[in-house]
Amino acid sequence: MNISHEPKVFESRLGRVRAIMAEKNVDALILSVGHDLPYLTGYQAMPLERLTLLIVPRDGTTSMLIPRLEAPRVVDMPSVFTLVPWSETDDPVAMAARLIGGARTIAVGDQMWARFLVELLAHLPSATYTRAVDIVGPLRRVKDAAEIAALQRASAAVDRIAAQLHAGDIALIGCTEAQVSAELSARIIAEGHDKVNFAIVAAGENAASPHHHAGSRVIREGEIVLCDFGGTMAGYCSDITRCVYVGDIPADIADAYAVLKSAQATGVAAGKIGVSCESIDAATREVIVAGGYGEYFVHRTGHGIGMEEHEDPYIVQGNATLLEAGHAYSVEPGIYVPGKWGMRLEDIVVATTSGPLSLNNTSHELVSVVA
Amino acid sequence: MNISHEPKVFESRLGRVRAIMAEKNVDALILSVGHDLPYLTGYQAMPLERLTLLIVPRDGTTSMLIPRLEAPRVVDMPSVFTLVPWSETDDPVAMAARLIGGARTIAVGDQMWARFLVELLAHLPSATYTRAVDIVGPLRRVKDAAEIAALQRASAAVDRIAAQLHAGDIALIGCTEAQVSAELSARIIAEGHDKVNFAIVAAGENAASPHHHAGSRVIREGEIVLCDFGGTMAGYCSDITRCVYVGDIPADIADAYAVLKSAQATGVAAGKIGVSCESIDAATREVIVAGGYGEYFVHRTGHGIGMEEHEDPYIVQGNATLLEAGHAYSVEPGIYVPGKWGMRLEDIVVATTSGPLSLNNTSHELVSVVA
Repeated sequence: MNISHEPKVFESRLGRVRAIMAEKNVDALILSVGHDLPYLTGYQAMPLERLTLLIVPRDGTTSMLIPRLEAPRVVDMPSVFTLVPWSETDDPVAMAARLIGGARTIAVGDQMWARFLVELLAHLPSATYTRAVDIVGPLRRVKDAAEIAALQRASAAVDRIAAQLHAGDIALIGCTEAQVSAELSARIIAEGHDKVNFAIVAAGENAASPHHHAGSRVIREGEIVLCDFGGTMAGYCSDITRCVYVGDIPADIADAYAVLKSAQATGVAAGKIGVSCESIDAATREVIVAGGYGEYFVHRTGHGIGMEEHEDPYIVQGNATLLEAGHAYSVEPGIYVPGKWGMRLEDIVVATTSGPLSLNNTSHELVSVVA
Repeated sequence: MNISHEPKVFESRLGRVRAIMAEKNVDALILSVGHDLPYLTGYQAMPLERLTLLIVPRDGTTSMLIPRLEAPRVVDMPSVFTLVPWSETDDPVAMAARLIGGARTIAVGDQMWARFLVELLAHLPSATYTRAVDIVGPLRRVKDAAEIAALQRASAAVDRIAAQLHAGDIALIGCTEAQVSAELSARIIAEGHDKVNFAIVAAGENAASPHHHAGSRVIREGEIVLCDFGGTMAGYCSDITRCVYVGDIPADIADAYAVLKSAQATGVAAGKIGVSCESIDAATREVIVAGGYGEYFVHRTGHGIGMEEHEDPYIVQGNATLLEAGHAYSVEPGIYVPGKWGMRLEDIVVATTSGPLSLNNTSHELVSVVA
């Protein structure tokens, strides 16, 4: 399901991780559920109660603790890690504590289940715990050529679905949001993704809730319909938002959308190497504020994307990270008028030495559909 | 999507939680991603980087910290909790630390992302952290009548799919495991689930890997095919395993299956109120050991089930928890001969005052299919 990698890719990543550990004085890195683990080993832990844990000491052998019944799932790479299977009556956290040994500073994977950290605290109470994102994040956020190609393929797939939406190929009138969401989900798979991550469909006043859960509300004529959807293809994510209007677009909606479209284009264009992430947010926001809708843009401008839908770098006030070639992120301003309507426009962008490269290229217009 | 509940259901659960907190000397309970949160409030946190956190002090107001853009998703229940929305430039962990205040012992939800606990440790370094499962688990594992009915409906749905498999309605010969898995997934939804949780399909020697990932291997005649699948319906989970044999069943497979079937029936029958969970595991295992396959039964006998596929009580050596009326769990022994074949047989069982009630009732035979 993922980009296939040779052990040497993982050896190189692990070498760079260890260099950052040395620089930041971190003695051990521990990774479980989440995407740092497959980024460094090719293996993704099952999100279950049996602990899978990669333990990377600053020097010495990297170990992967794994439930014995899941060991056959792992592609063993002795040059990258040593597999340590544990049995049903073993205590895997005690085993982890022994493997971590005398580490004073331990960096913990962001999405590891808290229960394992709570149990580890009892074994190693005097250690200092920090976030693994400070170690693995700087690597993961700079995508290499194979990763950018994977993001491009996934983006092209959701672009095709957005074009189908614009063309009126997806039934809207009389359908519930949930039905349209199911149809988008089916098309996400049909267009080549392995997994649907989300398919937000929000009609009329529901579009004013940015993370609306598609429900039983029926779509009618004379409404805006916001569609925000994405999946995972060969290990990398897509994410796009387009709005359509069912019927003739009223003047107030058209005016607001013109501001939104201009803000989004400004945000994309601002993505030059060396600028701060927060300056991209500011440039985007400024257009919406100048257009008179500032109070209705209630979220950050975007998020990094890669193996995860949301990852570093975040395009948000307060993030002074400077844009580097290979950073991939969304630019997705929105305008949400509570109780009335909402709209958002989103592309995925990669920073390159020749300027921002938008991976989504379906029409950015608010298309009027009769479907 | 869930069983609909009145605020009084949540008020009552929260009251019982507080009684257990007092008993165990826990000052604050904090819940995020996972199922304890919807069990106590009806709301399920999005598994994303923006923190949702319920803070239950032993006395005083329960607060739900929520990203402002997700606040419209929450069904507000002022008699249960106070909603505290945070904005994109706020620090939600600092807000959480203030709400937790001077708590000395803090119980943390099992599946909360570790990043939030790591950040909280910096704010509240001298607190003692324990697992929320000790507080909420005793409630959650005793299912009430509405919960048992929900489990029954979900179990009946996967029973129908297992019957379709037995009847030869699901194509196997010449198909890949992944294709059969996709077909099972489609039927899980078609039979009324909201979500597919897993659909393991493992053919021949792949069936010897208990958590096998369905792949590109083509199913042929003369092979056992293990299917283990389940989903979530109205908030509650299903989980069933049945094996079929493509063609005539050889004597060695039939012999092993007779042992497996007898062990599983023994395990189901052992589920009487007042016995320990580990004694159910022992009773099941004993039959497989006596049959000569002990070394090939490499996992515990089962797991609790409810809002989660795997939850308390676990049917495993070392778990002295005594079975109570309303406990729901799987009985799923397996025999796995590496490199050759594997088999598992699984039902969901509820402990009742009139004995164990099996929620899965599709034939327990190893059915020979030509499909």
